[in-house]
Amino acid sequence: MTIPPAAPDTFHVYDTTLRDGAQQEGMQLTVHDKLRIARYLDQLGVGYIEGGWPGANPNDTAFFAAAAEGQLTLRNATLVAFGATRKAGTFAADDPQVQALLDAKTEVVCIVAKSHDEHVLRALRTTLAENLAMIADTVSHLVAHGRRVFVDAEHFFDGYRANPEYALEVVRTAADAGAEVVVLCDTNGGMLPSWMADVVSAAAQIGVDLGIHCHNDTGCAVANTVAAVEAGVMHVQGTVNEYGERTGNANLVTVIANLQLKYGWPLVPPSALAEATRITHAIAGITNLPLSNRQPYVGSSAFAHKAGLHASAIKVDSNLYQHIDPMLVGNDMRMLVSDMAGRASVQMKGSSLGYDLSNRDLAARITEAVKARELDGYSYESADASFELLLRSEMGLTDEFFEVLAWRVFTTHEVKPEGDSEATVKLRAKGISHILVGEGHGPLNALDVALRGALTPAYPQVDNFELTDFRVRILDQGHGTDAIVRTLIDLTDGERTWTTVGVGTNVIEASWEALYDGYRWGLLKRD
Amino acid sequence: MTIPPAAPDTFHVYDTTLRDGAQQEGMQLTVHDKLRIARYLDQLGVGYIEGGWPGANPNDTAFFAAAAEGQLTLRNATLVAFGATRKAGTFAADDPQVQALLDAKTEVVCIVAKSHDEHVLRALRTTLAENLAMIADTVSHLVAHGRRVFVDAEHFFDGYRANPEYALEVVRTAADAGAEVVVLCDTNGGMLPSWMADVVSAAAQIGVDLGIHCHNDTGCAVANTVAAVEAGVMHVQGTVNEYGERTGNANLVTVIANLQLKYGWPLVPPSALAEATRITHAIAGITNLPLSNRQPYVGSSAFAHKAGLHASAIKVDSNLYQHIDPMLVGNDMRMLVSDMAGRASVQMKGSSLGYDLSNRDLAARITEAVKARELDGYSYESADASFELLLRSEMGLTDEFFEVLAWRVFTTHEVKPEGDSEATVKLRAKGISHILVGEGHGPLNALDVALRGALTPAYPQVDNFELTDFRVRILDQGHGTDAIVRTLIDLTDGERTWTTVGVGTNVIEASWEALYDGYRWGLLKRD
Repeated sequence: MTIPPAAPDTFHVYDTTLRDGAQQEGMQLTVHDKLRIARYLDQLGVGYIEGGWPGANPNDTAFFAAAAEGQLTLRNATLVAFGATRKAGTFAADDPQVQALLDAKTEVVCIVAKSHDEHVLRALRTTLAENLAMIADTVSHLVAHGRRVFVDAEHFFDGYRANPEYALEVVRTAADAGAEVVVLCDTNGGMLPSWMADVVSAAAQIGVDLGIHCHNDTGCAVANTVAAVEAGVMHVQGTVNEYGERTGNANLVTVIANLQLKYGWPLVPPSALAEATRITHAIAGITNLPLSNRQPYVGSSAFAHKAGLHASAIKVDSNLYQHIDPMLVGNDMRMLVSDMAGRASVQMKGSSLGYDLSNRDLAARITEAVKARELDGYSYESADASFELLLRSEMGLTDEFFEVLAWRVFTTHEVKPEGDSEATVKLRAKGISHILVGEGHGPLNALDVALRGALTPAYPQVDNFELTDFRVRILDQGHGTDAIVRTLIDLTDGERTWTTVGVGTNVIEASWEALYDGYRWGLLKRD
Repeated sequence: MTIPPAAPDTFHVYDTTLRDGAQQEGMQLTVHDKLRIARYLDQLGVGYIEGGWPGANPNDTAFFAAAAEGQLTLRNATLVAFGATRKAGTFAADDPQVQALLDAKTEVVCIVAKSHDEHVLRALRTTLAENLAMIADTVSHLVAHGRRVFVDAEHFFDGYRANPEYALEVVRTAADAGAEVVVLCDTNGGMLPSWMADVVSAAAQIGVDLGIHCHNDTGCAVANTVAAVEAGVMHVQGTVNEYGERTGNANLVTVIANLQLKYGWPLVPPSALAEATRITHAIAGITNLPLSNRQPYVGSSAFAHKAGLHASAIKVDSNLYQHIDPMLVGNDMRMLVSDMAGRASVQMKGSSLGYDLSNRDLAARITEAVKARELDGYSYESADASFELLLRSEMGLTDEFFEVLAWRVFTTHEVKPEGDSEATVKLRAKGISHILVGEGHGPLNALDVALRGALTPAYPQVDNFELTDFRVRILDQGHGTDAIVRTLIDLTDGERTWTTVGVGTNVIEASWEALYDGYRWGLLKRD
């Protein structure tokens, strides 16, 4: 069981969640979503963040514009714009898509190039020579404009099988034109690990730094990536939570954890890897795509034990029954059904919010409260504001801004200009009862209008509060419309945005609870 | 890219869904469930089905009794009872757990034996010599009673790392006592593929047939299994849908498909492999644990394409963009209709639903309609049923099952047993008006109850319709609670599940539209 030598200093961890991951069915990211995800990826310690394809869709163009305007400050990562080689029979200098890459103003650009002869002839409908010219022209043009250029050699492995000379010629052309890294892409995902070494070794003869980009169609994306690394590539591409088209891309966190914890390669700071569970769950909260409980390292079941066979033995020595210490990835060993949050992470989260939870009893009590709530369906991974309110409640810090006496809401299909819903909220604030009716588009809008109206006499500052996003998730799938529902809500006061969570047997009840928490937290910070 | 030689005739495909798979969190199988799953596994063509641990829990004992009584007729597979070596300091002949294995009346018995010295000393609390005696005694006893015996060497890879001599001694002891196969188990799941060959080769020196049993903790269970096969094991264990404790067991269908379709090994009849998608989904229906869309080979997204980059090229030759023909595993290439896809993908999706869209004007008109609706916030990439309704409408195929005259819904925070919401739906079906009130937990549940009730007199078949999941997304972030909302809804009639989409200024309006589409599509298919 030999372990490969330590990674070279220049090893690249390259995330493509925001570009290739966004090809996943059901994934729809706004510019705001992409900015938030990029910040999480930066916390994870990745070296490169591929942000999208500027020019190909307005959202991605807007994302790079926002980043260039200073809305995205990265501590570790370098932002990358993705695009393609120029069109056949033109010049890179005249290609608007290539210009859009320059306009994205990133230090690094990654362009996709065809490396399978059949794809060039039949899909691109050009000659093999023109494809090489397109690569050389596009890479040189971008390099001449000061960009570091990576080239994704699309369908490289299938192309190598069909026509090895041409596939290698693509790599050579890209390298000669100034590409810093040529990434071998298993675009259709059909490779197996034992097939990797020969192909990577052949490409390595060219002398350019190589990367690897795998898909999971044989269930081997992570293993194929690791096999390519063993064969000499120094750049790994993947996505968080295995997002991606079809069966998904290589799971980047699993790749990092395998190389760092099994081979001892220092790819990201250990303190960043110890945040992997929090970060992957937070990103799942933004994409609103559930993270599999069984996801390696970070899934809520990844270190959970059920078998009676193990349970007693685990008491003897838990390390006999787990392949790594779960704390290394910020996860926790759970016995039976429990939570995501161990005491250590509660303490860390509390201290990041400015609370001293070094008292073990207090930390244990809060952890128990979090566990109990998570069993009911709450999720505090991204709902920091609700977490802080729960923490304050357990610490005896009560914030009695207002008491809700009653609410109800009515929706009909008759749409009037003022909305289709009518809500009534009755509450007591600063000793005085207020009852207010609000109209709006939909029940949550109407409740928001009514709640804000009823609070305004006592707390005029709520007039600045605005609900900017909400996400709803059904929890116990299979129970249909009477299942448990979780809602996450984002409120802003123009200066900061905070997230709260609510749970209930229906979307309105859950949303109301999150809205209620949201106003309480806003008043706490603005009072 | 060399391919290993064809599998020996005696290669074992061994399923442990009903035993190790059942360790998964959330998995609760009745005897009836186990019998149904075993029949599906038999259809899949596996050689061995590990049915459970008789004596360890009443359900498993009852399952083997039912099988022995003729309730389970297997065409291909051999049923296996799982158990453990006898207790320390006793005789196998006196051990009730060993007797329960014989009482299960299976041709094959598989027993777990400890092969990691630390586990023997600290978890089992006996001597290394006594552990070997337990293995020898138990195997000989079972063989003497006419059983074929397989031995699972638990924690073998960690044990080999800690004390290779002892781990190998366990294999030798089992072989000498008459075990037919010794299965090397990566119980904690921490292995990587490149570590497999050395360990398997060392064990192979003993001369007994070897098996492999992997868990997915490094995301490499399938790759580790394939690597062990390449190193010489002739028996692979795994579970359907990767069920299992923590991150799950090796996905047996992925292993079979890789070895059969990539290496050309004839492990199961091709006609059985071509049922893999149906079988895995049917088993997921029994376990009631959702099957990941991204599962290799059999997931609903496994051969789906989204990117506009690919859509036009796929028409040229679909094999350029898929690693195998999906028909080989009973899956299908689906085109996702999305804002990135043009006429080509609309035509292909239409034809996969059985509509002839070869007329360019018609295809262009439908594409424009899809684009216009997507601009309004609709998303058809997973909502096939809504796409079909839109397509039929553009083709002039109107389906006038019912006309909604009015609906309204009322929600309050007072929770009663019958729910917190009350909905009224008024509609006209087959010339007669119906008005019905429904109560439920939340507005959508109440609307669903009311709509189904109002439709039942005209269409009794709606009684089978059940809403199983809904997903909500706010679209134009920044507009707060009066933003556009998209809802996706899954309905089922017990045989198939279909997805519809609705868009509106609020969650109820959007959900209502998706519900309305869902009932229309269901009536179209069931009428």
